[in-house]
Amino acid sequence: MRVYRRETFNAAHRIYNPKWSDEKNSDVFGKCSNPNYHGHNYKFEICIEGPINQETGYVIDLKELKKVIQDEVCERFDHKNLNMDCVEFANIIPSAENISIVIWNLLRPHVNMDLKMSVKLWETEKNSVEYDGK
Amino acid sequence: MRVYRRETFNAAHRIYNPKWSDEKNSDVFGKCSNPNYHGHNYKFEICIEGPINQETGYVIDLKELKKVIQDEVCERFDHKNLNMDCVEFANIIPSAENISIVIWNLLRPHVNMDLKMSVKLWETEKNSVEYDGK
Amino acid sequence: MRVYRRETFNAAHRIYNPKWSDEKNSDVFGKCSNPNYHGHNYKFEICIEGPINQETGYVIDLKELKKVIQDEVCERFDHKNLNMDCVEFANIIPSAENISIVIWNLLRPHVNMDLKMSVKLWETEKNSVEYDGK
Amino acid sequence: MRVYRRETFNAAHRIYNPKWSDEKNSDVFGKCSNPNYHGHNYKFEICIEGPINQETGYVIDLKELKKVIQDEVCERFDHKNLNMDCVEFANIIPSAENISIVIWNLLRPHVNMDLKMSVKLWETEKNSVEYDGK
Amino acid sequence: MRVYRRETFNAAHRIYNPKWSDEKNSDVFGKCSNPNYHGHNYKFEICIEGPINQETGYVIDLKELKKVIQDEVCERFDHKNLNMDCVEFANIIPSAENISIVIWNLLRPHVNMDLKMSVKLWETEKNSVEYDGK
Amino acid sequence: MRVYRRETFNAAHRIYNPKWSDEKNSDVFGKCSNPNYHGHNYKFEICIEGPINQETGYVIDLKELKKVIQDEVCERFDHKNLNMDCVEFANIIPSAENISIVIWNLLRPHVNMDLKMSVKLWETEKNSVEYDGK
Repeated sequence: MRVYRRETFNAAHRIYNPKWSDEKNSDVFGKCSNPNYHGHNYKFEICIEGPINQETGYVIDLKELKKVIQDEVCERFDHKNLNMDCVEFANIIPSAENISIVIWNLLRPHVNMDLKMSVKLWETEKNSVEYDGK
Repeated sequence: MRVYRRETFNAAHRIYNPKWSDEKNSDVFGKCSNPNYHGHNYKFEICIEGPINQETGYVIDLKELKKVIQDEVCERFDHKNLNMDCVEFANIIPSAENISIVIWNLLRPHVNMDLKMSVKLWETEKNSVEYDGK
Repeated sequence: MRVYRRETFNAAHRIYNPKWSDEKNSDVFGKCSNPNYHGHNYKFEICIEGPINQETGYVIDLKELKKVIQDEVCERFDHKNLNMDCVEFANIIPSAENISIVIWNLLRPHVNMDLKMSVKLWETEKNSVEYDGK
Repeated sequence: MRVYRRETFNAAHRIYNPKWSDEKNSDVFGKCSNPNYHGHNYKFEICIEGPINQETGYVIDLKELKKVIQDEVCERFDHKNLNMDCVEFANIIPSAENISIVIWNLLRPHVNMDLKMSVKLWETEKNSVEYDGK
Repeated sequence: MRVYRRETFNAAHRIYNPKWSDEKNSDVFGKCSNPNYHGHNYKFEICIEGPINQETGYVIDLKELKKVIQDEVCERFDHKNLNMDCVEFANIIPSAENISIVIWNLLRPHVNMDLKMSVKLWETEKNSVEYDGK
Repeated sequence: MRVYRRETFNAAHRIYNPKWSDEKNSDVFGKCSNPNYHGHNYKFEICIEGPINQETGYVIDLKELKKVIQDEVCERFDHKNLNMDCVEFANIIPSAENISIVIWNLLRPHVNMDLKMSVKLWETEKNSVEYDGK
């Protein structure tokens, strides 16, 4: 049984590899590398997989998962500049792929290790990524 | 190849474990346990997996699957109180998880056993579950 | 200039006119009149119309409007039975039309009278209503 | 008859009144005033009102309107920082309200003056604004 | 008070003016004029405006409106070729604008003349039209 | 890590098996077999699975994937009649299942063979299919 909880945060970012020249960044990443940043309404969904607790009918209490997600992810990233404000991206390019890994790593310690976990993240309605820890 | 069919029903429910005191129900389930019920527009999607029939280009005729879903699920649960009106939940807490299992069990006999089946159910836009029979 | 804020609540209700026999209620309202209630994920959007404040660039501060909407509408109706739990519907049939009027009346005193206000309410994805106080 | 065309752009911004202290900006605008910006997937829809051309069955050729919208709005604002990169907001706070006015002003000269025009802009799924030139 | 009901139909069409040469049709309408047709999932919403009936809490019974819409619009146009199969478009270019007028004319006789009526039609998620009979 | 890119095309089609009589086609396929075609706004999403490139933070450059999808799929099928205009369906019934296979086969040569690929295709909001090459 899998259960899903969806949340959002709004943030600025740019795709920029500091080991490269500005020219190469611009060549590879195009407008995603705009020096003054751009931004997105990020939408993400946490999937938890495991057995149903017969006493509650729940795999996990979504009220509690919601609180963890808000404390660990939304509070941290909402209305922030991922490159400038967020230590999690100090050495990592804030691509959708890497954001999903960072979210997975932030939440994993708060979810029982008997439960599997994955993260789906939409950067736009057309572009999304999914990470399950592997 | 997987094919999907989505439908909806609107129902009232409450999350309540009859083996527990009202106080414990309220402590654990919060407002989801409100004695006079609340309700949802449930959205659900049936996934059928199997080979394509070369004569039709179909895995399964969605016109027929649609009819089975409406007869077995929508007719049964639409505009009902899951706790009070539906014998399927007489001994089962109508959590999203358990509703998806009940739907899976209702539909499984109507779909060829050579085809795999799973159910995704959205209780709200933010909360959903998925069950594949295991 | 118009600004809009959308919120949701999940509630149970039934359409029932106490002046009519059960039979007439059933004839007129069909399954919407099921005695044990059914429910919906109500989605609603408040529209505020007025001039822009040059100092803020806002017609109204949506942070504040959001708080008023949550206190006056969501807290009151979320995870409730509109017929049984909500005094606002003691003498009013909780049709989508009447729910939109009740929401308008609850919010109107909290919004500057120089600003026009209207309410759009979706009972399902397919059925919705709109009320502007007239 | 009204016709509508919807497009999107992704941009960074902050709500900041340069005549105020940083403290006052923070008090009034909260996290929307974060100095390092945040961002949104802006979605906007242009509405054009007028009679149908009997020869084409169109009020306006949406292929042409689409091109104007992309050239005048999307190219200008997509993957930009509205405060830093866009001269249109040099002296205007880039609130959703003001962005909709800027879009209206950019497009108005390109649409026949016999046709009415309005702009709806969604900053998030929950927050939106609408401007018709008045 | 306004109430809305949304439905869909799936149809083929082409934009073609029989008074013009094929070349001019192609010049003006581009790929929308492809001789072998293309198609859309049309989504449309009927808006009815009027007073609330105090006995029912309804402006209009949406169950009945739904039935009229299905009989008069969906049955007529669903899985059809608008140009070839539908007499309503024998002398009218099936642009979104004209389809909305045809729908309005089909439904108007079935709705009490004391109630105002309008039609919104989406040809794609990005292109839509609205007609109110004027 | 999986990344997803979503696109659309609008096309006409009919479900028709040329080895069968018209009567049998009509019996089996119903209105989907209408001789003059009907149509859909097809929405499809390509999923690519593989490791992250540490230099870019990408599994695959979605700008490039977008271009391939538009050249190979959208240009080919948008505003076309799949049965009449598209050689890809000369000997294949253009069911959603088969369209997803055709898309997969068109794109597979353009994506590095170390990356897994699958296609999800929505014919309507309620009906969709998924194909991963097996």
